[in-house]
Amino acid sequence: MAKLVTKITDRDTDFATWYTDVVREADLVSYSSMKGSMIIRPYGYAIWEKMVSILDQEFKKLGHQNVQMPMFIPESLLNIEKEHVSGFAPEVAWVTQGGNTPLEEKLCIRPTSEVLFCEHFKNIIKSYRDLPVLYNQWCTIVRWEKTTRPFLRSREILWQEGHTMHKTEEEARKETLQMLKVYEDFQRNILALPVIVGRKTPKEKFAGAKETYTIEAMMYDGVALQNGTSHYFGQGFAKCFGIEFLDEENHLQTPYQTSWGCSTRMIGGVIMTHSDNHGLVLPPNIAPIMVRFIPIQLEESILNKLNEIAHLLPKEITYDMDTSTKSPGYKFADAEVKGIPIRVELGLRDLEQETVTLVRRDTLEKIQVPIKDAAKEIESLLPVIQKDMYERALKRRDSMIYDTNDWEEFKNISQTKPGFILTNWCGDESCENKVKEETGLKSRCIKEESTDGVCSICGKPTKYRIYFGKQY
Amino acid sequence: MAKLVTKITDRDTDFATWYTDVVREADLVSYSSMKGSMIIRPYGYAIWEKMVSILDQEFKKLGHQNVQMPMFIPESLLNIEKEHVSGFAPEVAWVTQGGNTPLEEKLCIRPTSEVLFCEHFKNIIKSYRDLPVLYNQWCTIVRWEKTTRPFLRSREILWQEGHTMHKTEEEARKETLQMLKVYEDFQRNILALPVIVGRKTPKEKFAGAKETYTIEAMMYDGVALQNGTSHYFGQGFAKCFGIEFLDEENHLQTPYQTSWGCSTRMIGGVIMTHSDNHGLVLPPNIAPIMVRFIPIQLEESILNKLNEIAHLLPKEITYDMDTSTKSPGYKFADAEVKGIPIRVELGLRDLEQETVTLVRRDTLEKIQVPIKDAAKEIESLLPVIQKDMYERALKRRDSMIYDTNDWEEFKNISQTKPGFILTNWCGDESCENKVKEETGLKSRCIKEESTDGVCSICGKPTKYRIYFGKQY
Repeated sequence: MAKLVTKITDRDTDFATWYTDVVREADLVSYSSMKGSMIIRPYGYAIWEKMVSILDQEFKKLGHQNVQMPMFIPESLLNIEKEHVSGFAPEVAWVTQGGNTPLEEKLCIRPTSEVLFCEHFKNIIKSYRDLPVLYNQWCTIVRWEKTTRPFLRSREILWQEGHTMHKTEEEARKETLQMLKVYEDFQRNILALPVIVGRKTPKEKFAGAKETYTIEAMMYDGVALQNGTSHYFGQGFAKCFGIEFLDEENHLQTPYQTSWGCSTRMIGGVIMTHSDNHGLVLPPNIAPIMVRFIPIQLEESILNKLNEIAHLLPKEITYDMDTSTKSPGYKFADAEVKGIPIRVELGLRDLEQETVTLVRRDTLEKIQVPIKDAAKEIESLLPVIQKDMYERALKRRDSMIYDTNDWEEFKNISQTKPGFILTNWCGDESCENKVKEETGLKSRCIKEESTDGVCSICGKPTKYRIYFGKQY
Repeated sequence: MAKLVTKITDRDTDFATWYTDVVREADLVSYSSMKGSMIIRPYGYAIWEKMVSILDQEFKKLGHQNVQMPMFIPESLLNIEKEHVSGFAPEVAWVTQGGNTPLEEKLCIRPTSEVLFCEHFKNIIKSYRDLPVLYNQWCTIVRWEKTTRPFLRSREILWQEGHTMHKTEEEARKETLQMLKVYEDFQRNILALPVIVGRKTPKEKFAGAKETYTIEAMMYDGVALQNGTSHYFGQGFAKCFGIEFLDEENHLQTPYQTSWGCSTRMIGGVIMTHSDNHGLVLPPNIAPIMVRFIPIQLEESILNKLNEIAHLLPKEITYDMDTSTKSPGYKFADAEVKGIPIRVELGLRDLEQETVTLVRRDTLEKIQVPIKDAAKEIESLLPVIQKDMYERALKRRDSMIYDTNDWEEFKNISQTKPGFILTNWCGDESCENKVKEETGLKSRCIKEESTDGVCSICGKPTKYRIYFGKQY
């Protein structure tokens, strides 16, 4: 099975095909006869496992506990919160038959689990002593999407959903923003994604939420990817479900709720931000394999020397060695297509000269270093790659954010330049709708409150600075 | 919320109610309006997480890689292997509607994923160089059971399923037995379950397998729990799916296959083997919290001393401290109902005398030790508890295995004594059926081949020594 980078479509010619080429050639995903679902292959799943392990640790540090709810929601349970059901019912999968018997009540496969958690919270929350409840669930959800793309939009999604209940509004709001910050830090520091963080407009918020906060990344093509959301629910669901607790003065109170989630979609975000025509490029902090050792000849002296270097690496630096009988050229291309941050090449000539070549995946730069310094050089190069990848992505992203308060210029940019537009907005949904109708852009998130100037769309006094952009 | 052990039904009076009482009072599981599914609460899920982490490490050490397949199987895909579909179709959940639209082809939710893996294997296996493929998946499966019990029989099951493909029969058979051994060691050494390991009869094997090996544990009430299976498939599925590879001589060959799985059912096995009328009893090696510190008075001097002891424990010993304002009696009962292997009690009087009390959950024995030795005593007591729990369970299990080759005695024992019966069997399904019809017992597994004597049921020459027993 020859695997050559020439199988990858040029990124600037056809970004969509480039993306699916990278996903396939890097062995991340495969397809089955189950349309709209993907097979996550070992290398793709290893990336997800690393994401899960880092995030899970963060959640637990902050006092969250993992639980597992049923995957099915009886129709009557889904129907309890009206805004929620109208948001989700059109895109759920329905189980109507168990074995050979039609079910009395049809069951949807969870598209998200608010109603299941609420039903449970009603059972376990009785007193202020039971609060806060800080739960998280790692699971699969199903949304019956019509058009699907691996990691970005799929009928099945691997994700986590946090669900919490609090005594006070203040505490619940703090939790909402705290978890948003966890996502933000994770995406910045681990995934090297320069994300924009802000509040969704009422039109774009989660069905049933009072407020939705979002993490918006911009892909290489200027299109937005919403990579995580954190919702403040207020008491809406709690009142629908009759969740109450006795406070310190023995009075019945209704608790305040949050939920927050992120998914395998982040893998898509990593690919579409960092990768290139040679394949995947992974930031070291999320790479399952950070270093690949490639012996140019399969000689014992070379293998021994590479092993020596490998054993000097601190144990958090993961590595492997390509000892297959493939040609060096094939091995280089394989390390490249898989996005391994550093490959280490060593041949007989290098051995004589006591040097080794480190190749950075992000820049393809070759760095010759003395063999005796190799482990230290690798150790210090990895954080440099991580930082450079973030900064390159940040620079590119910032160069594609256009700041204008002129409606004609707004429309012109929207049709000629990919990216986000930052503008003044009065807060009226009608203006948001007009942007969508006339430019195809949707609001990403509110950057900040601002009364300086007028709404770019209608000319009334402005309330917000807001980002618009196309989205995946 | 007073939680008293008196809420637990006596184990010898009503074992089934005792079981659900323990599961509920130990906060392992709760219920929802989704009948037949359970909510796994934080404490129950923490046990599962520990199981997953230990097993996952073992699988990876042996070269297995994790993947994620779709959760849906189109009806036509399930239908490819005839024996398999006839075994599973009667108990699957069917999705027939996506959003508001009826599906063209109905989809079952995976009851197990052989067909999905086979379809994928056909795509990725081309050459002997691609073999072996050693895959594992952690996921949820669905089987539409009519009667359900938490952890034992549920419509949704959290499990892992290994699926592997090999060049030779020998290698595949070796894998089948190797993974059986992984389960056996895990259950013996971590769960302290004295398990019987053997081959299933053709009647009881997995639908589509050539051979099924099983791990059979005996519960406190003498009833068997099948706690893990490992299947050798031969080339059956591979031929149905047209999976072929080019061997070293460039000839097309069909690979040999295995699969193996274990589930949250093991949590049920731990409960029904070790627990008592005070609640859960967890073997230290699987306990999320191994030690609970209980200050008899909430005095700083006591809390400081307990913290001092805790900090001397090696980091693999997990602990917590009950600093709630509940009474000491309540705290003792809570540590007991949750099955925490050791609780450490310290009061002002103890502090004066420089002693501390360790209470073993398995025996409820109280051990006074000098405070200065406490950490060391805890460290050495944990493996003793682990060992004693295994040995007590083994002794009890062995006392409930009856060895008889006399059919009248067999029938008599089956109606009067709970447990397993070990007997001679000719290998004919008709004799196996007769045992079921006349005694209600099913074959558990074949212990060994033996031609010494005659079949206990029909009197023909015997071929096997085999266990019979009732099952969950």
